[in-house]
Amino acid sequence: MVVTELDRKGCSVHLSDDGRSVEILDQTRLPNAQVWLSLHRIEDLCGAIRTLAVRGAPAIGIFAGYAVYVLALREETEDPAVFRSALEAKGALLSAARPTAVNLSWAVKRMLAVLRTHEDAGISRWKELLKAECIAIHDEDIQMCTRISEYGLSLVRPGDGILTHCNAGPLATSKYGTAIGPVLLGKERGIDLKVFSDETRPLLQGARLTSYELQRAGVDVTLICDNMASIVMKNGWIQACFVGCDRVAANGDFANKIGTSGVAILARHYGIPFYTLGPTSTIDMNCPTGNDIRIELRDPDEIKNMWYREPMALPEVKCYNPAFDVTDHELVTAIVTDRGIVYPPFDVNLKKLFS
Amino acid sequence: MVVTELDRKGCSVHLSDDGRSVEILDQTRLPNAQVWLSLHRIEDLCGAIRTLAVRGAPAIGIFAGYAVYVLALREETEDPAVFRSALEAKGALLSAARPTAVNLSWAVKRMLAVLRTHEDAGISRWKELLKAECIAIHDEDIQMCTRISEYGLSLVRPGDGILTHCNAGPLATSKYGTAIGPVLLGKERGIDLKVFSDETRPLLQGARLTSYELQRAGVDVTLICDNMASIVMKNGWIQACFVGCDRVAANGDFANKIGTSGVAILARHYGIPFYTLGPTSTIDMNCPTGNDIRIELRDPDEIKNMWYREPMALPEVKCYNPAFDVTDHELVTAIVTDRGIVYPPFDVNLKKLFS
Repeated sequence: MVVTELDRKGCSVHLSDDGRSVEILDQTRLPNAQVWLSLHRIEDLCGAIRTLAVRGAPAIGIFAGYAVYVLALREETEDPAVFRSALEAKGALLSAARPTAVNLSWAVKRMLAVLRTHEDAGISRWKELLKAECIAIHDEDIQMCTRISEYGLSLVRPGDGILTHCNAGPLATSKYGTAIGPVLLGKERGIDLKVFSDETRPLLQGARLTSYELQRAGVDVTLICDNMASIVMKNGWIQACFVGCDRVAANGDFANKIGTSGVAILARHYGIPFYTLGPTSTIDMNCPTGNDIRIELRDPDEIKNMWYREPMALPEVKCYNPAFDVTDHELVTAIVTDRGIVYPPFDVNLKKLFS
Repeated sequence: MVVTELDRKGCSVHLSDDGRSVEILDQTRLPNAQVWLSLHRIEDLCGAIRTLAVRGAPAIGIFAGYAVYVLALREETEDPAVFRSALEAKGALLSAARPTAVNLSWAVKRMLAVLRTHEDAGISRWKELLKAECIAIHDEDIQMCTRISEYGLSLVRPGDGILTHCNAGPLATSKYGTAIGPVLLGKERGIDLKVFSDETRPLLQGARLTSYELQRAGVDVTLICDNMASIVMKNGWIQACFVGCDRVAANGDFANKIGTSGVAILARHYGIPFYTLGPTSTIDMNCPTGNDIRIELRDPDEIKNMWYREPMALPEVKCYNPAFDVTDHELVTAIVTDRGIVYPPFDVNLKKLFS
């Protein structure tokens, strides 16, 4: 099945029309081919997570919910105990496909909890409950993104230029996305924003995904190399920076795609507001500061060889390739969540958000 | 002729052993193949400039000097007037191969001036004088680079980490280079510096050229994506930034490869000294400020398609692709020239340099 757009809900993950498979827009093929994959076997579902055909924390959570449901539908046993242990085993396989993805194991756990909460319901009822649960996970994500988008949109004015880094739009989440949410919600309401999308080396999510989804949505988007953010800000073209977040510490420091901290420093230099947008679930009150966030180091090949027709550096040249960096809370104008906009002092105001 | 290193002088341009051709290390083939080209026909010499087989302002100047000499050797006429007008016509073709390269037309003019200065010397003597002149151009560049390297080396301590952007090493100049000069001169003297080389999108000069020449010279070099400069500085790994300059204005603002201004802003944020290194000829006292420097815009294909196995963005996505940016003089710790280190206030101290 090949289509050329996101689905009717504006998402990259959904249940197939017959309700027996998960369908995803294969993110590894973008922007050159829009290929929808239809998956139901455990090995294919795990493979899609592993190869990043589905990526973006919320999108992976939604995918995992549907995956558990689809796997449940295809269990043929009539013995509830066997059914449950078979599904738990497959859930464990799904979770192991990308151990660092918090939303993945969270969604699998939430799905499997249905069986224990309704212990004596029986297989047929379990399947109905699982279907309702995975749809709820998806719907809640859409609502969460919508609320973040509303709050974000309140921070800008028609015609404003927005700089974004990496990809936190519909492909990575659902419907509007998080960092890109205010732009897409604005577009729906006739409020046009101009987006400058950092290409985001080394994996080029800004070029391959963000500029793709914005262009398709009819948004005025300009692709730049990461090192052009400074001149674009100096030119006066940026009125706000919107970026996602992978983990927010209790003091407001946050980890996001490598390069985010540099964007924040440039924004501070040029006097431009800098916002990070993400669901409340991204805020980890048990993590005191950014220093407590471990940074994943990735393969040098992503810098030297990936994408290219031939190697771009001598094989013996060493690389440093951190996947994320931590942005200091002092550089953050506000944290935009589904429960509201949090301003400094973050240590105090994040606590209030949860009380 | 294929060799695997820079030549004996540590340069990428020289006269062939028989003195009748210019030999260059083809920079378009690096880092995957070390191919020396031997050139003497006007179309090949112009082609090497046009395709960037030879690049870097000083290297182009040296190349142009040798090119005019080699072309003179191959003029077969015995009539001095015919000889001179033929050589002037070829000089004009060389200069037109890259009109924005100031060093190119400067070197061609300097070579041709020999004929007018010694108007009655005759063809045979002219050839001797031209040979001396092109060797002088090359030797002066080596001396200039050596002086810049000496001054630069005085600014750092053994073991220091240096961040550099783009390519201002031997390939682009002669022998030590400018921004990379202190590192290579230090290496000769047993003073080891650790270099972090920005890959420098979109043309990847840092990956393809800077990390190549440093690795070959035995320097401890680590390649990073441009957006990793912030985390590397935050990690405490950088004690100084050394970058080249394409044009320095009278107030100390300077144009250099796109992304340089961002490096300067990060360095200021983290309290790291930021130096630009270049010959006095790069300082344009007729250019009052950076606002008077026109920024060249280049082809979007460099961002979306060049180097890649397949396009990295939708064809209809627009790009902004400036080749240079201007770094504000307030972000510059010092300007390192062949005549000494210039500190703020630059408007006053640059004037002194020329008086």
